[in-house]
Amino acid sequence: MSLLVVGSLALDSVETPTQSRDNVLGGSAVFFSYAASYFTGVRLVGVVGEDWPQEHTDLLGQRRVDTQGLQFVEGGKTFRWRGKYQPNMNDRDTLEVHLNVFADFDPSVPDGFQDSQYVFLANAAPGVQSKVLDQVKDPQLVVADTMDLWINETRDDLVSLLKRVDGLVLNDSEAKLLTGEENLIRAAEQVVSMGPKFVVVKKGEHGALLYSEDGVCVLPAFPTGDVVDPTGAGDSFAGGMMGYIAECDQADTETLRKALVYGTVVASYNVEDFSLEQMKRIEREQIDQRFSEYCDMLKI
Amino acid sequence: MSLLVVGSLALDSVETPTQSRDNVLGGSAVFFSYAASYFTGVRLVGVVGEDWPQEHTDLLGQRRVDTQGLQFVEGGKTFRWRGKYQPNMNDRDTLEVHLNVFADFDPSVPDGFQDSQYVFLANAAPGVQSKVLDQVKDPQLVVADTMDLWINETRDDLVSLLKRVDGLVLNDSEAKLLTGEENLIRAAEQVVSMGPKFVVVKKGEHGALLYSEDGVCVLPAFPTGDVVDPTGAGDSFAGGMMGYIAECDQADTETLRKALVYGTVVASYNVEDFSLEQMKRIEREQIDQRFSEYCDMLKI
Repeated sequence: MSLLVVGSLALDSVETPTQSRDNVLGGSAVFFSYAASYFTGVRLVGVVGEDWPQEHTDLLGQRRVDTQGLQFVEGGKTFRWRGKYQPNMNDRDTLEVHLNVFADFDPSVPDGFQDSQYVFLANAAPGVQSKVLDQVKDPQLVVADTMDLWINETRDDLVSLLKRVDGLVLNDSEAKLLTGEENLIRAAEQVVSMGPKFVVVKKGEHGALLYSEDGVCVLPAFPTGDVVDPTGAGDSFAGGMMGYIAECDQADTETLRKALVYGTVVASYNVEDFSLEQMKRIEREQIDQRFSEYCDMLKI
Repeated sequence: MSLLVVGSLALDSVETPTQSRDNVLGGSAVFFSYAASYFTGVRLVGVVGEDWPQEHTDLLGQRRVDTQGLQFVEGGKTFRWRGKYQPNMNDRDTLEVHLNVFADFDPSVPDGFQDSQYVFLANAAPGVQSKVLDQVKDPQLVVADTMDLWINETRDDLVSLLKRVDGLVLNDSEAKLLTGEENLIRAAEQVVSMGPKFVVVKKGEHGALLYSEDGVCVLPAFPTGDVVDPTGAGDSFAGGMMGYIAECDQADTETLRKALVYGTVVASYNVEDFSLEQMKRIEREQIDQRFSEYCDMLKI
């Protein structure tokens, strides 16, 4: 089924304790799209500047990503982010952020995308996310991501948005910040009381938690000794998750749990190299294989 | 099968953000014994002072804990610990430690305990742990716990001990400290290269990791919104794990994985109240019920 994502496209510069890369392909909607494309076609809406290399659009087009919703701003520069990971590869410092054309992003959902059944509002100002929703007709499932910045700066907008979405994806520190609850289960419970039917709390190397009316499910990350670059892990997780949901065309709790595992598996590949490098090397077959290994690990 | 534990008995004073308790029953060998007693008889070796209330010995005796290895030091005081938990209930500050009689603990394994098939060396100086091993005849499985203090202060003794044990249980920060590896999978791999056949890395609210020749298995904690006092969680985890192994009288990887889940479940009860309060209220039946809920949660 049709899956729409609206979010950032970026040029990232990443430093890890052992290696670094400059101006590589990044952005929440990019990681999401590529990850989801293993499962379903993706409709991408976002904005880039004149410095955006055509090869990045081509790369996405070669997968099942429809890029007709990409806005090009003449004379503008693409969103840039520079970050440095701590030795634990979990904590990172943002060294530079230049929102550039993303700062004034006014999302316009093409006519052909407005009937999208599954919608992912990647990390952006809640006001911008709401504008996307205004343009989509009767979607089956809307899931949003958010971050500490919006929780702190535009809480009212976020609270309004939460009443309009079916699911929220956020990380553990954000869940605590949003709710004031230190216990993650209680924090998740609180989020659901704010509107969404379910919430997925991402815990990085510690996995993810799903809270819905059917209760709570905690799943570990796929264990890997080869973490090269965690950038985009959360977005590729969301992409794998939403891609699988759209492929199944349903979002009952059993499907959601499987979707969490698919997200976990795709994210585990994503962190094995910079940018999309490792994801470019794998196909659905490798994802299903790791999915199966993961399930075996959890068979008690 | 026979399960021997050697470790501390203590009087704990615990402060949490909402409540506190003074001089309640604690100590690694106490939490371990009580947790293991749901599965098998336990032989306890440890030391206490004149201030040790007889009711604590009675409580253990009412379970299947054989306390004949308990040494009483005349004129001595029992090990005391005072700690305060941060709002996240995961990090804690030690406010006071009085080792008292535990400082000069010279473990003496009673004749009737020397044929123990399963041995758990709870947290103590590696030299003391080695002395216990010297007194046990041909055990089937020996597992040790350790902590940052011994890794920093008596590394050589610990390295020697690791060559004599089948398994090591330690927490994530200790695994990193011991090996210098930030990635937990690699850290676990390193620990195994130092001697033990397997290592269990405890990650608190994030669950536990088992590394053995059969590979790696990561399991989440049992999700609970009711964390009242995490003191003893690691020890009751180890107790549930070792108790189940001794009950099964085998330690192949499949049994170890189940044992990790039993440890996880017992620890999840332990944190629901101070000291042994919640554990005193539950029986094996409740443990098996939660074990079953946990397995259902992980069925993908």
